[in-house]
This record gives sequence, C-alpha cells and structure tokens, in this order.
Amino acid sequence: MSAPLVSFSDLREFARSCYTRAGVAEEEAAIGAEVLATTDAWGVFTHGTKLLAGYLKRLRAGGLHPSGSPKVVREGGAWVVFDGNSTLAHPTSVKAMQWAIQRARIHGLAYAGLRNSCHFGAAGYYAWLAAREGLIGVAMANDIPSVAAPGSRGAVTGSNPLAYAIPARRHDPILLDMSIAKVAGGKVFAARARGEPIPGDWIIGADGCPTSDPSRFPMEGALLPMAGHKGYGLALLIESLSALLTGASMTWGVRSWSHHDPGLPTLHGAAFLAMDPAVLAVEGDFAERVSSLIDEIHASPRADGVERLYVPGEIEWERYRQQIAEGIALPPDVIPPLREAAALSGLASVV
Amino acid sequence: MSAPLVSFSDLREFARSCYTRAGVAEEEAAIGAEVLATTDAWGVFTHGTKLLAGYLKRLRAGGLHPSGSPKVVREGGAWVVFDGNSTLAHPTSVKAMQWAIQRARIHGLAYAGLRNSCHFGAAGYYAWLAAREGLIGVAMANDIPSVAAPGSRGAVTGSNPLAYAIPARRHDPILLDMSIAKVAGGKVFAARARGEPIPGDWIIGADGCPTSDPSRFPMEGALLPMAGHKGYGLALLIESLSALLTGASMTWGVRSWSHHDPGLPTLHGAAFLAMDPAVLAVEGDFAERVSSLIDEIHASPRADGVERLYVPGEIEWERYRQQIAEGIALPPDVIPPLREAAALSGLASVV
Repeated sequence: MSAPLVSFSDLREFARSCYTRAGVAEEEAAIGAEVLATTDAWGVFTHGTKLLAGYLKRLRAGGLHPSGSPKVVREGGAWVVFDGNSTLAHPTSVKAMQWAIQRARIHGLAYAGLRNSCHFGAAGYYAWLAAREGLIGVAMANDIPSVAAPGSRGAVTGSNPLAYAIPARRHDPILLDMSIAKVAGGKVFAARARGEPIPGDWIIGADGCPTSDPSRFPMEGALLPMAGHKGYGLALLIESLSALLTGASMTWGVRSWSHHDPGLPTLHGAAFLAMDPAVLAVEGDFAERVSSLIDEIHASPRADGVERLYVPGEIEWERYRQQIAEGIALPPDVIPPLREAAALSGLASVV
Repeated sequence: MSAPLVSFSDLREFARSCYTRAGVAEEEAAIGAEVLATTDAWGVFTHGTKLLAGYLKRLRAGGLHPSGSPKVVREGGAWVVFDGNSTLAHPTSVKAMQWAIQRARIHGLAYAGLRNSCHFGAAGYYAWLAAREGLIGVAMANDIPSVAAPGSRGAVTGSNPLAYAIPARRHDPILLDMSIAKVAGGKVFAARARGEPIPGDWIIGADGCPTSDPSRFPMEGALLPMAGHKGYGLALLIESLSALLTGASMTWGVRSWSHHDPGLPTLHGAAFLAMDPAVLAVEGDFAERVSSLIDEIHASPRADGVERLYVPGEIEWERYRQQIAEGIALPPDVIPPLREAAALSGLASVV
C-alpha cells in the first residue's frame, strides 16, 4: 500500500485550522502551520504535522498559551532575548530569527535568545529562513535530558538540536539539521516495536553500559551522544547559548512537551544566529563561492557503487520539490496523530 | 623510562628564542611561544611545541613571513576581516580573538575572520582567551582536505577544528577542542608504525570503502568524518565561516603547512566569535549558572566502574595545573622535532 498523498496546501490548511480552533491567533496559526507542513515537505516527518496533536493538547490544557505573544526582555543593537510567554514555539522562533536577520543586515551578525518557549520542531526551518534571504543562519535549542555523557548511568543532556543553513548562488541552501544524539530515540522505539535488537552503540541500559536491548528505553538508560565526548561537548555549548544565557530552564528543569503535564509550561530555551555575507564578505560573491564548493563536492571521486555525493540538505530539497508538486507522502506513523488532531479540533482529518 | 620533564617557562623560552632567531618580532615570538607551551601544558602534545620545527622551516623558506603584520581588510562595529599577511598564525589568531573580545563587550557579540593565515595550532587556545575574560569564545579554521564525505573515494574537507570555551564561576572554563574527523590522522600513522590494523571505521582506502589497513594512508584514502554526515556537515559550516566568508583559500586551495613547499603561503582561513554574557545574559550570574550545570553533571549517576564524570576541558585543566607546577612530561615523539628546532635555530635543545 503506497503512502497517502496530501497536498502541501491541504496539509498546511488543516494544521492552520486546528491551531485557530485551539484559540491561536490567525497570524501565529498560519506561521505554525507553515513550519509543520514545510518540515513534512522536506521529508522530516518526525518533526512535522505528526506533532500537531501533542501541541494541541498543550494548548487546550494551558501549558501552551493560545493567546499572548512573546515579549522582548532586553535588547541591544545586535542581540535580543525574548520571553516566549509559553506560546506556540514555532511562530515565536520565526519571530526571533526574523529579528536576527534584520539586525544582522545592519551589524553583520546578530543573536536572538529565547526563553520560556516550548518544543520548536525542526531547527533547520529557522536556519533556512536566514539562508532564504541570503544570510547564514544557525538555530539551536535545549530539551529535557535524554542523552548520556561519557561514563554516565543515565541521561545528562538533551538531544539538543543544532541546524545551520548557508545560501548558495546556483544551488539550494546547504542545510544541516542534526541532534547531538548518535541516533534518534524514535529509531530505538521502532526496533522495540518490531522486537529487534539494536546496534550496541546506540544506547546505554540501566547499568550505564552500552546495550543492544531496546526493551527498557526510555524508562531506563539513555541515548549515546554522537561521536562520544564531541556530541556531549556540543550539547553543553547549545545548552549554554539556548538556556544559560537566556534564563530558560536547563536540563532537568525543562519539561517534556509530549509526556509531562500538558497544563504546565515546558520552559525550553533556544538561540538563533544570523550572519549577513553582504556585510561580512569582503569581496566577491559569497553565495557564488558556496556554489563553487558544492560543484567541487559534486565532482569529487566517489566510492564504488556510489552514484552521487550530496551536500547537507540536498536530499531534503529534492523531496521538497517533489512533494510540493505531487503531494506529501505521509508515512503510516503520521496518520494516527493527524486523525487525533482532527478529533481534538472537531475537523475532518486531512487523511 | 619516564618522560623528560621540562618546565613550562623553559619550554616557552626555548620556543620564543627559536622564533626570534627566525626573525619573528619580539611580541609575536612571545605570543607564539606562549600558545605552544600552553598547548603542551594542557597535554595536547599533537599541537604544541612538536610543531615548532615545521613552523621554523616555513619561516626560513619564506612561506611564512617573519616580519610584517596582519592588516584589517574591512571592519564594522561587531565584525572584522583580517589578512594575516602569511605571518605566524598563532599571534595573528590571538590578535583576532582579542579584537572580537573587545567588540563583544560593546555589541554583545562579534566575529573576526582571518584569511591568508597558516596552521594556527590548537583552536582551543583562542576560545579560552575569551573565557578567561568572562566571555564565550568560539574558534575554528579550515585546512587542506584529509576527511571523506559520505560516499567519497578520497578526502573532500579538512579536519577543520572547532573549539569553544565557556566561563564558569567556581570551575575552570568548559573547553572543547575537536576536529570533525572521527579520529586524528596521527592515530592512523601510529598504528601503521606499529604494524597494527585499525578499527574498520576510521578511514577509507583507495577504493573509497572503509578499511582496517592503515598502510596506504595518507597517500590513499582519507579519514572518515565523525558521526558520518554530521561531521561532514559541520566541516562545511567551518569552511564557510573561515574561508568562504573571509576570502581565504578553500579545500584544495589550502596548502599543507607541514608537507607542501615551505616557500609558499598556505592561505588558511579562520574564524573567531566572542559573546559577552555581561551584555547578553538578561539577569543573574551566567558564570554561576554554568557552575551549577557543572555541579549537576559531577553529581550525575555513573556507570559501574566509572569514578568521575568530566566536563570538556576538565582533564586538560588538571594536567595543566600539574604540568605548570611540576614540569611538562613531553612524550617521546615530541623530542626529535624539538631537537630539530634547536638545530635549525643554533640553540641547545630544551630536552
């Protein structure tokens, strides 16, 4: 059975209607829906409309405020800290990155910190907002701990996403969106559901030692960080810029957006950086130089059996174009949560 | 046989003398020596005085200019691009980071780009300069390709170092200095020298496939990136901020500081970012919050048999204090290049 196809605009309209029925203002609902549908169009289904039902539950329970808007806590010329006021994180994050873009055009670079926010979905979306307008964008956030430190028995840091996007003249922007965990928790759940063992370097078990048994995760153990101490180290940098600098909650002070009391704020932090090559690049065409680098990579010798070398984001941009044109092929695990979102909203489901 | 102990000040003085005998001005020689000796004191012997002889050869052959100084190509309030004028990269990089620190105190954050530079040693040193003064520091550089992209037959990016440092109130700064390669090339050379195989996920061979045979590296094949596409992706971000933005050479346009014609400039690029919590942190004590995070990590449950959980840099700071107090225990592979530096300089070797 092939995956059901839903048009980008139908999916976006469905998410928008769900948000407005939950009391979110028109503009924020439209932005929040655009972020989720775009994420699905990239094929990043783990962070797209699959999560809508969870956000709606928080909006109904009051942990996310449907109305109200983020406030500037303090700002300078090239930096700002927003308080998200526990509203939907996606429109707030868009607002923060747009602030950074505007100020980077003046100052060359700018930082927008965000506290009292929630799960913001795909970090890459916000990084891309900058690249779409010719700037370099970086986005990151903290989250409730799920990843071990080297030698720890349990989780110490969040899987703390980090994304960047870089504009190219003759290509789509380079776009990397990663977590500092070696693999996503969802892969461990999937193996558990299939009753299969996992590779021995994905998680630690209850004793803090690596295990190929997914059966007790996430109740016990933790994900392992990517590249050991390097992933752990990057997690602490992300925690610092997203939470310690902004006054957001850190580590265990963050609540899970999906499984903690939906009536309470999650207190996530995030950070957005924009750098404007039109200001910073001394001479020549920065975006053309990026395209030259991409050309060079595409022309590099390939291992036997490898047809293409990709730059980060290239696969997502190809999926994006195809799915915008032909419809989004929603995988089976996205259907039940979309139907739940429909039921919560008193709407017919989009699938 | 125990490693020979050399005092920090003797080692620094030796390096300083070597530099001045090669024609480097007093101030730059002193800074360059301080960077190398500090790197050894941290125990990062791969990037300390071991490299001095190589730098001296470039200084003598003209690829590094002993005199002359970096110039500002263009600057704004919160950003600058320096041309290193192919002088010794360590003092130039110190100057660039100090510029960023000064401007971050005014603007909250600042970027200093550097082109026409050379190998700058340990990126962590420059990041630490910021943390020492209460700021968050980030340092990075590009280098001649030695690391594969997923699916490539050979090297595509440099091992592009990335370091950050974050000040803490009651602890040493958090300090991570990493390359985007899975393991350092030096580990592969060492296995080859011992005639031993290596783990199957460190390098690719001539056909682009992973191999446990170190015998043809680095003439053929390449290092694998850490965490696959994530390390590769971070390499491109570093390349963009260090080289594409500054006008430094990119990828294959960079010359090896150690094995290409020492009479030619290497054309490395680098980037330095500073962020000042005294400006950006909205309220409370940022450095105290960092210390709280470190306390929390230290108190986290440990796996069986693990005595301590470390934050990045903690091992290096302990070595630093011990070696500053008791002398630096130079490993065997550092002795011959130090003697070579002495011979090149007409000085008695420090060991």
